[in-house]
Amino acid sequence: MNKYQFTLEIAVRDYELDAEGIVNNANYLHYMEHTRHAFCRRQGYSFAQMTADGIVPVARRVEIDYLAPLHSGDVMLSCLNVVRKGPRYIFMQDIFNQATGQLAVKAQITIVAIENGKISRGDRLARLLPV
Amino acid sequence: MNKYQFTLEIAVRDYELDAEGIVNNANYLHYMEHTRHAFCRRQGYSFAQMTADGIVPVARRVEIDYLAPLHSGDVMLSCLNVVRKGPRYIFMQDIFNQATGQLAVKAQITIVAIENGKISRGDRLARLLPV
Amino acid sequence: MNKYQFTLEIAVRDYELDAEGIVNNANYLHYMEHTRHAFCRRQGYSFAQMTADGIVPVARRVEIDYLAPLHSGDVMLSCLNVVRKGPRYIFMQDIFNQATGQLAVKAQITIVAIENGKISRGDRLARLLPV
Amino acid sequence: MNKYQFTLEIAVRDYELDAEGIVNNANYLHYMEHTRHAFCRRQGYSFAQMTADGIVPVARRVEIDYLAPLHSGDVMLSCLNVVRKGPRYIFMQDIFNQATGQLAVKAQITIVAIENGKISRGDRLARLLPV
Repeated sequence: MNKYQFTLEIAVRDYELDAEGIVNNANYLHYMEHTRHAFCRRQGYSFAQMTADGIVPVARRVEIDYLAPLHSGDVMLSCLNVVRKGPRYIFMQDIFNQATGQLAVKAQITIVAIENGKISRGDRLARLLPV
Repeated sequence: MNKYQFTLEIAVRDYELDAEGIVNNANYLHYMEHTRHAFCRRQGYSFAQMTADGIVPVARRVEIDYLAPLHSGDVMLSCLNVVRKGPRYIFMQDIFNQATGQLAVKAQITIVAIENGKISRGDRLARLLPV
Repeated sequence: MNKYQFTLEIAVRDYELDAEGIVNNANYLHYMEHTRHAFCRRQGYSFAQMTADGIVPVARRVEIDYLAPLHSGDVMLSCLNVVRKGPRYIFMQDIFNQATGQLAVKAQITIVAIENGKISRGDRLARLLPV
Repeated sequence: MNKYQFTLEIAVRDYELDAEGIVNNANYLHYMEHTRHAFCRRQGYSFAQMTADGIVPVARRVEIDYLAPLHSGDVMLSCLNVVRKGPRYIFMQDIFNQATGQLAVKAQITIVAIENGKISRGDRLARLLPV
């Protein structure tokens, strides 16, 4: 594993499986959002606080490569790094099968902050959430 | 808190909130299923193994009282007791807000085991999963 | 089928199945909420409008009997009747397999309206949403 | 709107909103999967039949641009085109707000077929599901 700014351990829940017995592709977006929000809370600025402050982070672009499926009983390590590029926060998010060390999913998620209904320049978020 | 056979700590995930900022009612069924499956694994007989053995536990009846909503950032203690009544496994499941100790949800979930497409008498499950 | 105040046709989506190939129990709460909200919109008072008016309907109690599972490709008829009992709105909700006419799920959902953070007497909702 | 091989009308369900009142990003993967499965059924080869035949389509790569959020009460037109490139089926999937005609989401989803636990060359699927 590379160096990551943040890692969260998440257990697969059986309702997240689809009829083939593998985690449905949409759930990885849920895992990764949950990981980003946990990261923000660890940095001292929770998602609830952001919303209260009128800063609404939304996904602008998502790229995911699905490399190896997760199954019932699996535990994952959900890891992230983040860089700011102007108004965009680029999260590089990798999910590993904890038991095997295998890379299950590799993603790049671009987040922008909506303020007053418009995409902001991200400066306020950058002050409140140094990354 | 009463005595429980099993307790699982679960963090609210923000995508589980609905537009009012409280956990959507359906997600409690997910939390409680996840808790039952974790309980079975702890007892030594995982859900994946059950299915492989041709035993498919399904919900037959659900009663839930919603007493206090959970919000972003909350952590819950999801607790259960279970008794067998013939073919039926009755799970008494309570969910507490960990920080406040407040009871959020109180439920009774009746599970039956499907074997060969029919509700079984539950004897095989009872041997494999003593409760 | 009995007489119902409202019926909505809903197609099963494959991601709603679980590893056994049947619709996961929690999704029926989603189907039934979606049906209630479509009913309110048909009555001329949408959920979005309610929230904007400071009336937040929440589930207080749920009872569901699961009678026959739904599978991939199934279409359901999701039907409801509703009566008001003081602050409580009692929804009787039945879901039928459209192709077979078989009753899949029978439920009673008790909704109360939160106004200013407390359970209201429901009078305002009753004026705006005659049932 | 361009020409599409298939279009499905889908209504937003309120539980798909997140706390900001917009459809959560992961749900678009659900909408698009549901659209692909409806397309396959229309072409005469359902997902259930595929699985019964030992062909399991899985997502290999996903790219999504989120252009305009969907809200409570919105209805979308979920459109697709598909081309085969060797083992890969590339779905170009666009989702429009039906009322405004605005493009909400633009995506490219790469699907491969798993047969006997391995990525197949896709020839069997190509015979059964001409695209």
